[in-house]
Amino acid sequence: MFKPTLYIIGLGIHPTYISYKALIILRKKVDSVFIEKYTSPIPKNTINFLKKLIRKDIVELCRRDLEDLSGKKIFEELEKGKNVALIVPGDPMIATTHVVIKNIAVEKGFNVKVIHGVSIISAIISLLGLSPYRFGPIATITYPRMNVYSMRPYDIVKDNLERNLHTILLLDILENGKFMTIPEAIEILEKLEEIRKENIFTSNRIAIGIARVGYNNCKVEINFLSKLKHVNFGKPPHTIVIPAKLNVIEYESLIKNFKIDSNVIKSFQLLK
Amino acid sequence: MFKPTLYIIGLGIHPTYISYKALIILRKKVDSVFIEKYTSPIPKNTINFLKKLIRKDIVELCRRDLEDLSGKKIFEELEKGKNVALIVPGDPMIATTHVVIKNIAVEKGFNVKVIHGVSIISAIISLLGLSPYRFGPIATITYPRMNVYSMRPYDIVKDNLERNLHTILLLDILENGKFMTIPEAIEILEKLEEIRKENIFTSNRIAIGIARVGYNNCKVEINFLSKLKHVNFGKPPHTIVIPAKLNVIEYESLIKNFKIDSNVIKSFQLLK
Repeated sequence: MFKPTLYIIGLGIHPTYISYKALIILRKKVDSVFIEKYTSPIPKNTINFLKKLIRKDIVELCRRDLEDLSGKKIFEELEKGKNVALIVPGDPMIATTHVVIKNIAVEKGFNVKVIHGVSIISAIISLLGLSPYRFGPIATITYPRMNVYSMRPYDIVKDNLERNLHTILLLDILENGKFMTIPEAIEILEKLEEIRKENIFTSNRIAIGIARVGYNNCKVEINFLSKLKHVNFGKPPHTIVIPAKLNVIEYESLIKNFKIDSNVIKSFQLLK
Repeated sequence: MFKPTLYIIGLGIHPTYISYKALIILRKKVDSVFIEKYTSPIPKNTINFLKKLIRKDIVELCRRDLEDLSGKKIFEELEKGKNVALIVPGDPMIATTHVVIKNIAVEKGFNVKVIHGVSIISAIISLLGLSPYRFGPIATITYPRMNVYSMRPYDIVKDNLERNLHTILLLDILENGKFMTIPEAIEILEKLEEIRKENIFTSNRIAIGIARVGYNNCKVEINFLSKLKHVNFGKPPHTIVIPAKLNVIEYESLIKNFKIDSNVIKSFQLLK
């Protein structure tokens, strides 16, 4: 018996990173195409660029469609016997929402195929030339909810530094689509430091600010937190990396590929 | 002044995962194209598939070309003023070799652009529906060198389990291009357990064996180490995940998306 298929397709870190595999599926195998653009920013004109590329119309879904309504619009199409694609920014299964939609589809008896995308996590590791073996768990810096700060970024970075592991810190997104900036994130890290006082997010902690990894105008700044706080990184998405001690290849990658103030270079700690 | 560019292009987990961005660059911006296929397997016929897709010849490089000869063939082309692409499996900067080639190119004054690929790490996380926030550092299970076993996978998994974090274990590749299989890897984990006896790689430890993530014939088996050891996973690449306790969404993702023996499901430990 014919079972319709839901393709969950990762767009990757920038629309031009869409895969050949995804393009063929979008052009030849699906009847309806949806795109979700609230878990990560999608540049203006992207939808038009994609429509041209796949030669089909694309319906935009908001948070409410996917979360409160559990992907109703998607399942209506599948129930009509149509093959459906849901395009999502980045790698498709990073956000819990996508995992939940996938599980509902499987439960309803539809085929589900995940087409992987380039994830911001691996792109950042590549971009910086840091060793993929030396990253501890990631965390997200979140805006306070009801005036309460999540201490998770503090706990994770502290634990990672104790084991000499680097940390990638993702930045929060508000319901209204507002993306946290690096300066805003650093202000929050300072608050967490005020609360805990364990010398993790001190003003002379070296951090790496990264904006728009994968875009042509990607921006990387390596500096003390107190300095990064005043840098204008431009449009989202923004990310912060807190490096642990560096091995020799990592040190060379940073100093050869990025402009870094000599005071910062002198402060790099090397693995013995 | 014109400076030639070296594009280091990640092919992703399977040739069909090549990005639109990479295709455009390979078709329109480069004069010479090289491919490296010793850090990860590349399926037969891939080179021909890619040649057709990019409408150009592709020169294959072996480990010697990149490591012992430091990418000599690549730099000869750049020095003639040609734009060059080096296609590598997976995400381009996971292997130290690629980071080193990049650093040499920067030092020699060439432009270097990295085109990210879909990494096996993020694809595995997506495939399983496990939370990306709950992974500790990765490790590689290596063949013994001069009869000495690297204890790194043991130390990493032990530390990750203590902090309730999942671990991705990559599998070794020999110089002759032979890829370690999951049963071979489990034999090594058993040896490490014999040496350390700290109840990490016991016969009833639940593990996830994954072969060919991103391929149409991807295979996933979730079972006790003692059982997985006897499963034929077919062609490489193979990977192992050692899950920590599962949260509810992770538990549902595993039991809904994969066939799992009821004894194994009963043995899953859930986060409180």
